[in-house]
Amino acid sequence: MNRQWIYLRHPDGLVGPEHYELRESPLPEGLAGGEVLVEARYWSVDPYMRINQSKKPTYNELPHALGVVQTAGVVGQVLRSNAPTLQPGDWVEGMLGWQTHALAHHSQLRKLDTQLAPPSTALGVLGMPGRTAWFGLTESGRPKAGDVVIVSGAGGAVGSLVAQFAKRHGCTVLGIAGGAAKCAWLRQTLKLDHAVDYKAHADAGALVAEIKRLVGGVDVYFDNVGGWISDAVIPLVNRRARIVICGAISQYSGGLDEPELGPRWLHHMLYQRATVQGMLARDYLHRMDEMLRIVGPWVKAGEIVFEETVVEGFEQLPMALQSLFTGEHRGKLLVKA
Amino acid sequence: MNRQWIYLRHPDGLVGPEHYELRESPLPEGLAGGEVLVEARYWSVDPYMRINQSKKPTYNELPHALGVVQTAGVVGQVLRSNAPTLQPGDWVEGMLGWQTHALAHHSQLRKLDTQLAPPSTALGVLGMPGRTAWFGLTESGRPKAGDVVIVSGAGGAVGSLVAQFAKRHGCTVLGIAGGAAKCAWLRQTLKLDHAVDYKAHADAGALVAEIKRLVGGVDVYFDNVGGWISDAVIPLVNRRARIVICGAISQYSGGLDEPELGPRWLHHMLYQRATVQGMLARDYLHRMDEMLRIVGPWVKAGEIVFEETVVEGFEQLPMALQSLFTGEHRGKLLVKA
Repeated sequence: MNRQWIYLRHPDGLVGPEHYELRESPLPEGLAGGEVLVEARYWSVDPYMRINQSKKPTYNELPHALGVVQTAGVVGQVLRSNAPTLQPGDWVEGMLGWQTHALAHHSQLRKLDTQLAPPSTALGVLGMPGRTAWFGLTESGRPKAGDVVIVSGAGGAVGSLVAQFAKRHGCTVLGIAGGAAKCAWLRQTLKLDHAVDYKAHADAGALVAEIKRLVGGVDVYFDNVGGWISDAVIPLVNRRARIVICGAISQYSGGLDEPELGPRWLHHMLYQRATVQGMLARDYLHRMDEMLRIVGPWVKAGEIVFEETVVEGFEQLPMALQSLFTGEHRGKLLVKA
Repeated sequence: MNRQWIYLRHPDGLVGPEHYELRESPLPEGLAGGEVLVEARYWSVDPYMRINQSKKPTYNELPHALGVVQTAGVVGQVLRSNAPTLQPGDWVEGMLGWQTHALAHHSQLRKLDTQLAPPSTALGVLGMPGRTAWFGLTESGRPKAGDVVIVSGAGGAVGSLVAQFAKRHGCTVLGIAGGAAKCAWLRQTLKLDHAVDYKAHADAGALVAEIKRLVGGVDVYFDNVGGWISDAVIPLVNRRARIVICGAISQYSGGLDEPELGPRWLHHMLYQRATVQGMLARDYLHRMDEMLRIVGPWVKAGEIVFEETVVEGFEQLPMALQSLFTGEHRGKLLVKA
C-alpha cells in the first residue's frame, strides 16, 4: 500500500496534525516509458511549506491546494524502473511529497552519488538548504574577508551553513539562536566568533546592545527569522551593508496573513545606503552544479558540519513540521522511513 | 553686513523659526590666495536638512552642530576674487549655508554656465536634486522600457524629475502626491500616466486598491515619503522589483528619533526576490558630469519641467524649511535674496 499525508485545511496559526489526514491507497501498477517507482527513505520538512499555506499570494500566486499530498522534497530508492538511466536500488532525490511511494518520470529525479556523501544530504547541505545558503550568501550577501556577518536562525538548516560558509570567506561571524545549548554548539562545533542567545534578551533594545558590544555593526545580515530579532540587527547596518531576506520564520504562523507591527527602519537603509534583497532557492536551481563543485569536496573532506535531526516514522510528519516553529532541533530536520 | 541664520536648538517634531536665530556680523575683510567672497542669490531648503537634525546618528555620525550657520547649498555671485578662475559677477554654486555672504576657496565652488540654464537650476534639476533623481533611478532603480515605476512625493524637487526621467526610459509612471491640484499638474504638465492623491484615500488599504486598479503592480518604487504610503505600495512589488529609498519625509519630524510602528513587510521581498536600496546624492557627486551630459541638453531644449517655488527674502528661510513638511509647494523650493 501507498501511505500519503493529505493537506486538508489551511492553518490560521501554528500548523499541525489537525491540518492533515493520513490516507492509504494501492501502490500504482505498471510504469510508462521513462517512469520509475520510488520508495521514500527521507522526507523533508522545511519552513517554506508554511509560507505556501498562507491564504494570501506568496511566492506562488495560489496557496498549496487542499485535498492533495503535501508537497515536499524526498530522498528514496528506486523500486521499479522503466528508465534506462535508473536501476532498482539507486538513490534519488525529487519533489515527491509526503508519501511512502511515488511514481515519477526520471527527468524529475536527481540521481545521488552515495560516494560523495550520505543520501540524506541531498535534502540538506547538498540540496535545497545548502543551495539557499550558498547562493544567498555569495550572490546577495557578497561577503568580503573582514566583513561582519550576522546570521539569524544560525542553528537551522540554512543558517548553520551560511555561518560556516561566511567563515570560509574570511568574515567575522555572529550567529543568533535560541537557547544556551544551541549557542554553545555554534561557538564550539561551528567555531563561530560569536553566538547570541536571543531568549536571554528581553527585547530588541537589549539584543542590539549585546550585538553592538560584540561586533559594533554588520556588513551582511543573513535573515531567516525577521520580527524583533531583525529590529535589533537592522539599525546596526554598516555603510553599504547587504541584508539577505532568506526567511522570516517568526512571522509564518499567522503574520503573513495579518502582518504584526514593528518599528519602521527604512531610514537606516538611506543613511548607510544599504541593500535588502529577497532570495529563494529556486532562483539558483540551474546553478546547483556550481555549488556542488565547491561545497561537495568540503563535505566529502568532512570540513562542513551538517547536523541532521532525524525523526523516525512517516506518521510523525505533521508534528515534525510543527516542531520547526516550536522546537529545539539543530541543523536539518528530516523524517526517516 | 553679513546676515546669518544660526541653528540654535534641535527640534523634537516640526522644525521652524524657533530653532534658529538671525545674527549680523561685519563682512569679512581681505582674501587669502584662491579665496573669493560670494554674495548669495538663492538658498536651498531641502528635506535632508531635517535628517541631520535628528538626535541619533544618521548619514553623518553627529547631528548638525548647534550655534553655527545652517548648512545649505547656495547659488550666488562673486563679489570679490583672489582666484584667477573666478571674476566678480561670475555665478557659482557651493555649500555656503544660510548667510548673505560667504568666504570660500575657489575649489569649493562650481562655476555655473548661465548659457545652459538659469543659475537657480544648480540647486535643482542640474544640482543635488537632479543628481539624486538621475542616479537613484538609473543606478538603484534600473528601469527598463515597459516597467511600471511608482514615485512617492512625485510633486517634489526629486520626485518630479524621477517621474519624467522614468517616462524617458519608456516606463509607465504613476505619481503619488497630496491634493488634486498637484495630481492634475502631474498628469497634465508632467504627462505622467497616472497620478494618485493620497489625501483622497483614507488609509493604506484604500490606496493599495486604487494603485492595483491602475497599474496592477510595481517594478520600480522610488520612495521619497515612507510611512503608510509605502505600506500601500510595497505589497504590490512585482517579481525582482527594485525599491529605491531616497527619502522618508513622512518620518522626519520625529519618527527618526522615535520610530513609529508599521506593518512588517519583508516577506514580500522574499516572495518576489525584490531589492530595497538606500541612496544619497553624495554617492554620485563624482559622476555629476555623466548626468549633466545627458540631462543638460534636455534642460536646454526645454524638454524637462523643473518647477521652482521661490520664496522671497532671507528672513523667510526657517519658515521655508518648515513648509517642506507642511506646505503645498511644487518642484524645488528656493529662497531668493
